[in-house]
Amino acid sequence: MRWAIGAVVVAGVVCLSPAAGDQLKHDVDGWRAAHETQIITQFDQLVRFPSVAANPAGVAAAAAYLEQQLRDRGFDASLLTVPGASPVVFGSLATPGAARTVVFYAHYDGQPVTPAQWTTPPFDPVVRSAPLGSGGQVVNLSTAKPPYDPEWRLYGRSTGDDKISEIAFLNAFDALKALGRKPTVNIKVVWEGEEESGSPHLADILRANRDKLSADLWLIGDGPVHQSRRPLLFFGARGVIGLDATIYGPVKALHDGHYGNWVPNPAAMAATLIAELRAPNGSVRIPGFMDDVRPETAAERAAIAALPPVEDELKDEFEIGGTESHGGLADAIMRPALNVRGIRAGKVGDEAANAIPVDAQVSIDFRLVPDQKPDTVRAKLEAYLRSIGWTIVADTPNVAMRRAHAKLIKLDWEKAGYPAFRSDMSSPAARAVIAAATHASDEPVAVAPMLGGSVPLYVFNDIFHTPLVGLPVSNHDDNQHAANENVRLQNVWDGIDAYAAMMGELTW
Amino acid sequence: MRWAIGAVVVAGVVCLSPAAGDQLKHDVDGWRAAHETQIITQFDQLVRFPSVAANPAGVAAAAAYLEQQLRDRGFDASLLTVPGASPVVFGSLATPGAARTVVFYAHYDGQPVTPAQWTTPPFDPVVRSAPLGSGGQVVNLSTAKPPYDPEWRLYGRSTGDDKISEIAFLNAFDALKALGRKPTVNIKVVWEGEEESGSPHLADILRANRDKLSADLWLIGDGPVHQSRRPLLFFGARGVIGLDATIYGPVKALHDGHYGNWVPNPAAMAATLIAELRAPNGSVRIPGFMDDVRPETAAERAAIAALPPVEDELKDEFEIGGTESHGGLADAIMRPALNVRGIRAGKVGDEAANAIPVDAQVSIDFRLVPDQKPDTVRAKLEAYLRSIGWTIVADTPNVAMRRAHAKLIKLDWEKAGYPAFRSDMSSPAARAVIAAATHASDEPVAVAPMLGGSVPLYVFNDIFHTPLVGLPVSNHDDNQHAANENVRLQNVWDGIDAYAAMMGELTW
Repeated sequence: MRWAIGAVVVAGVVCLSPAAGDQLKHDVDGWRAAHETQIITQFDQLVRFPSVAANPAGVAAAAAYLEQQLRDRGFDASLLTVPGASPVVFGSLATPGAARTVVFYAHYDGQPVTPAQWTTPPFDPVVRSAPLGSGGQVVNLSTAKPPYDPEWRLYGRSTGDDKISEIAFLNAFDALKALGRKPTVNIKVVWEGEEESGSPHLADILRANRDKLSADLWLIGDGPVHQSRRPLLFFGARGVIGLDATIYGPVKALHDGHYGNWVPNPAAMAATLIAELRAPNGSVRIPGFMDDVRPETAAERAAIAALPPVEDELKDEFEIGGTESHGGLADAIMRPALNVRGIRAGKVGDEAANAIPVDAQVSIDFRLVPDQKPDTVRAKLEAYLRSIGWTIVADTPNVAMRRAHAKLIKLDWEKAGYPAFRSDMSSPAARAVIAAATHASDEPVAVAPMLGGSVPLYVFNDIFHTPLVGLPVSNHDDNQHAANENVRLQNVWDGIDAYAAMMGELTW
Repeated sequence: MRWAIGAVVVAGVVCLSPAAGDQLKHDVDGWRAAHETQIITQFDQLVRFPSVAANPAGVAAAAAYLEQQLRDRGFDASLLTVPGASPVVFGSLATPGAARTVVFYAHYDGQPVTPAQWTTPPFDPVVRSAPLGSGGQVVNLSTAKPPYDPEWRLYGRSTGDDKISEIAFLNAFDALKALGRKPTVNIKVVWEGEEESGSPHLADILRANRDKLSADLWLIGDGPVHQSRRPLLFFGARGVIGLDATIYGPVKALHDGHYGNWVPNPAAMAATLIAELRAPNGSVRIPGFMDDVRPETAAERAAIAALPPVEDELKDEFEIGGTESHGGLADAIMRPALNVRGIRAGKVGDEAANAIPVDAQVSIDFRLVPDQKPDTVRAKLEAYLRSIGWTIVADTPNVAMRRAHAKLIKLDWEKAGYPAFRSDMSSPAARAVIAAATHASDEPVAVAPMLGGSVPLYVFNDIFHTPLVGLPVSNHDDNQHAANENVRLQNVWDGIDAYAAMMGELTW
């Protein structure tokens, strides 16, 4: 019997017999083994829609395709939208006799692409025999015979983030149908088209369709599985808010011999500011920043302690000689972070000139934890900046402003920030999900109180106040948010198992 | 009578009657007024040679032109060089009966150009009615009649840095000849072709021609006049040494939500490092950095105190609301500086991604003062870095190095660094130069112990141990080291007066 390490925390209440789950997994695996070519062909087809924010037609085409896929499977499907939004693909299928309703959330849009950075075009998927960095070669699928090597990878934008979730859902559904297994729950689908743009219309669309979306549980299909490759369930995610800051020096670049030491150097001012905001161990120096941080529960602490260690393996993978903070990765993620995404001033390397730059730009994001709020963090940062002598402006300052203030900073806050969320790991629905996921996997399931990356879980909670569990399926090394995004075939197979368990076995 | 403010310090020993100088200036001004078109035409011709390091043919053509100009004036002229070097244009003209020999140093190479940044092409000079930033329009010289407006500006690369010095020399010589004024000194000329590359061969060329270059005084024609527009004499210059540092983060950019707080962020590490190297007031935090700084002499302190204030005007010009250090610009320049020339990590603005960057680059230069040495500064910086946990490498680190060291920094030191130099402001030669410059100007002369920018004065001192005075003539707002370099015509006229005084009046 394969208990999740994390599930030990709540193991006492798991109510399914292991045998039932094991049998389902066995049967689904059998169906999948017979349909590998069909699954990968469909995945290829879905990735070919260039559904990125810069391409509204590609987004619309992907939405129409997915809507049709749900209709083909008997769902009552439609596109939900509000003015200016990319549509949510909605589907609903009642199961006679089912007491519970589960909404499966995922998103079908992908991160922006810079095609020049890709080894093969982002919307022209290829299968490789291994990761690119390990010498993976393109596999000719027209001649390859299943069963495919589960370490093969499908390369393309949005493969891992997040179309794998839709592929897992559709094929899990097909498998259950082929196996004659009636779902145990009523099924609803919410597949968003703007997640990578910060979900600007999601709350409006959900609110406008509150009745249609009523349910007993939301399963959030996004993010990577655990770095140990074990399946992962998460019960929260950090929030996020970003800003770009511009610090002003002289109005023209000045010879740093003639004026160095006297004219303020904005590159040095930016460095000093970052050091004032953030300690070398990553802790944030803004007064009161930690005030709103919710203490961890005993269940959360136990879940973190039970996670398999990944730190040494990650240090090897990332080629780093140390970490910022003491403790493990899961501990670090439970704290808020101030990330320096970029800094730019003057010139470096061969382009460097002996000059005092005219300005410095610093790009930052805050990863928030419960119960921090973006507006509160913004207010605390701005109050701190003022307390250490900065004058904050919203627009490029004019001469009078420049002359009047020695420390002048322009703050451009991103509008798409949102708070963190952590749900109750001990609810009956949560326990049932942990049990079902455990049965669907040969590996122990990793159960994490919170994902480090940001997913707008708070939206679902604010509107529906319903239990919520994160169900990621992609590999952790899928290069999401970068070039050469990819999924490992075994993660697709595992994803189908997991989704089949959530539709065909879940009950509480 | 127009005493230099700075000359008050040594006024008691000035040995020429003011009347003699005033008459020479009057006569030279008259000659110049009759030759303005010819002077500007020649200046235009000299700037058209693209004598920048990237264009060896342009450097050679400018050298040949200048050599011929000296020959035409009766000089014994030649090109001095060593293998790999751009030539020094050397000229020598004995004055029967003269007891003293003066070497006039300048350079005919210019800073690199980025033509796209220029309003008009850098080697196709134009005259404008005012600075570009003040709406200056191109003047049609073929129809304009002299006397030209002295506020007009000649735009082109190397106009101010440093061909104005050669134009001033040649025309001052012509004026003296036309006026029938015999020089008071033997004249030698050293016009370098690699100053903007850090003078890599100058010492070798000077050493190889030590006898030929024997003299009683070197006049260094480089740099801008005082920001008050007063003529400037300087008795030293800061040295310089530069480096580029690369700080290593993860080997690939990582999602800062999943890994922020745990994987080291090289942008934040770079900021912390800069803050550890340099206080907000510009003072350097490297232990022992100030140990070798030579105290100011009473004469130097008095000279600084006597300089006209320029700070408010510069704050207006640069549109800054404050300064890094307390005290005036001249005080700041007497101290060494650590300038952050550039910093670059990750992306900012619209390009910013929620990622931990793979590395950070920081470009720094140190401006040195006597008796700091580049090697010593380098050793102190490296020892400090090691003491705060950095591992220094010279090449891009391999995986084993990356895994073994948490704080890994690659240092690329520039080879062309050199120490500072300050000469004796009270020597007879120095006093004579101050007196002559004073007579040549309607304005009090500013006398500065040290120029903020770097000029390899140490080379002349190391080899010749001869009195040395800096004689800049270009305007301070000449955009040297930037696009749209220019000289103000009045500075050309003043430069001719100053050079005429140094050739036709100087005696001690």
